[in-house]
Amino acid sequence: MRGGVPEHGRVPRYYAVRTSIEGLLEHMPEGGLLPTERELAERFGAARETVRQAVRDLLLQGRLRRRGRGTAVAGPKLAQPLALRSYTEGVRRGGLVPGRSLVALERRPAGPELGAALATGADASVWHLERVLLADGERVGLESVYLPVARFPRLDRDFDPGASFYAYARQEAGVRFGAAEERVETLLATPREALLVGTPPALPMLLVHRVSRDTGGVPVERVRALYRGDRFSFTAELHAATDITDQ
Amino acid sequence: MRGGVPEHGRVPRYYAVRTSIEGLLEHMPEGGLLPTERELAERFGAARETVRQAVRDLLLQGRLRRRGRGTAVAGPKLAQPLALRSYTEGVRRGGLVPGRSLVALERRPAGPELGAALATGADASVWHLERVLLADGERVGLESVYLPVARFPRLDRDFDPGASFYAYARQEAGVRFGAAEERVETLLATPREALLVGTPPALPMLLVHRVSRDTGGVPVERVRALYRGDRFSFTAELHAATDITDQ
Repeated sequence: MRGGVPEHGRVPRYYAVRTSIEGLLEHMPEGGLLPTERELAERFGAARETVRQAVRDLLLQGRLRRRGRGTAVAGPKLAQPLALRSYTEGVRRGGLVPGRSLVALERRPAGPELGAALATGADASVWHLERVLLADGERVGLESVYLPVARFPRLDRDFDPGASFYAYARQEAGVRFGAAEERVETLLATPREALLVGTPPALPMLLVHRVSRDTGGVPVERVRALYRGDRFSFTAELHAATDITDQ
Repeated sequence: MRGGVPEHGRVPRYYAVRTSIEGLLEHMPEGGLLPTERELAERFGAARETVRQAVRDLLLQGRLRRRGRGTAVAGPKLAQPLALRSYTEGVRRGGLVPGRSLVALERRPAGPELGAALATGADASVWHLERVLLADGERVGLESVYLPVARFPRLDRDFDPGASFYAYARQEAGVRFGAAEERVETLLATPREALLVGTPPALPMLLVHRVSRDTGGVPVERVRALYRGDRFSFTAELHAATDITDQ
C-alpha cells in the first residue's frame, strides 16, 4: 500500500548535500572535525553556499557543533527527564557538570495571572529568579522561576543562586514537593533570550512550563525554562496504572 | 540583583514590530483577520520586508495562521498528553476531530537496530506503518510505527489505516499495554516530511520517539511521530510517588 505521495518529493540541493555529510558523520568519532566548507564543496561538487546551508541545518539539529573556528561532530543530546529537580539530574546523567548563573532576582507584585497560578492573589509579592543554565560551563538554557515571597521570605539573603532551588526549598523552607504539571513546546528564542543563552536567533528551543505543588496541593513555584533544541531532549516513562486508559 | 546583561540587548527592528503586532493580537478574537502587510507597515512606520519577517516569526510560533490569502489569530496549541493513545485523546480534548491518512504500509526486515528495540532479532519481519496525522482534516503531523509482523500477522488485511492502532492492537491482537518510554525533541522537518505535512521547511517540529511494551515488558511498537511545532505542545503530570526523588 502506498498513498500517492512520492517517496522523495522534490529534494532541494542543500538537502542532498546534508544527507552526504550525514553519511560522512557516521564514520567519524564524537568531537571529530568536519572538513572545511571548501573541501566539502569540492568533494560533493556543490556551491559553497549550498554546503553552508547544509552545515547550518546540521548545527540547528545538534548533529554538528562549532568548535573554535571549526565544526565538530556533536555528542548525543542531553536526555532530560520530565520530573522535578530534573535539570541537575538530567545533566549529571549525561556526564556533564550542571551550573547556573544569576541574571536577576527581583521582587514584584504577582498580578492577576501569576497570582492565580500561584494561588497568592494578584496583590501578593512574588520573586522572579532568572538564571542561565550551564552544562560544563557552557550556556544551554534560561530559566525563570516565580515564587511567593511569603513562602520564601529570605530568598534574597540566604539562597545561593548557583545552587539547586529544590534543595533550598526542602532544607530551608521545609517544602515537600508533591506533584507537578509540565508542558513542553518548541519556539524560536527572542533576541534577548538568544543573547543570554548565546545562540543564533533562529535556533529552535524547547520551552518547558511547570507548576509544582507541595504534598498539600498548594502551588510552590511556576517555571518557564528554555533549553537549546540542539542540546536537549525530554524523556518520560509512562505506566499503565496511571497513564494508560483502557477505553 | 542583576547580572550585567542588559534587559533589552540589541533588539532587531523586526522584533520590535513583532512585539507591536502581539499587542494588537491581545485585543483580537481567535480567527480574527490581521490587517494587511501594507497597513501594518504604515501603522508601525516599518518597511514591508520588516513586517513580513515579524509575521513569519508569529506564524512559526503558532500565534498566527494563514487563512486563505489572509492571516488570522491562531487558537491555543493542542495540548497533547505524553501517554499511550495520546494522539486521538489529545486532539479530541482540543475539541477537534482526529484523523489519519495512509502514506505507506510495508513489510521489511527489522535490521540490527530495530530488531534490538523490538526484541525480535535483526532477521525478523516488521511492518512500517506511516500515516499523516489530521486534526479537523488538516495535516498536523506524520507518524511512523514499526511493529513485529509475528505479533500482527494480518495487519495488511484487517487493519483500517484511518483508525486507531491501539484499539486494533487490543481488540484484534489481544495486546495489553503496560508501559512506554517517550522522548521529545525539536528539529526542522526534512523536505519530504515538510511535503507530507504541508508545512514550510523551516518550521520547527516536535519529534516524539516512543517504545511501548505490553504488561509482560515485551516491546509492542516503536514510534517516530512528528508534530507541527506551531500546533502542538506536550503535557505531563508528575507525581511524587513515582517521579520525584527526594535526594
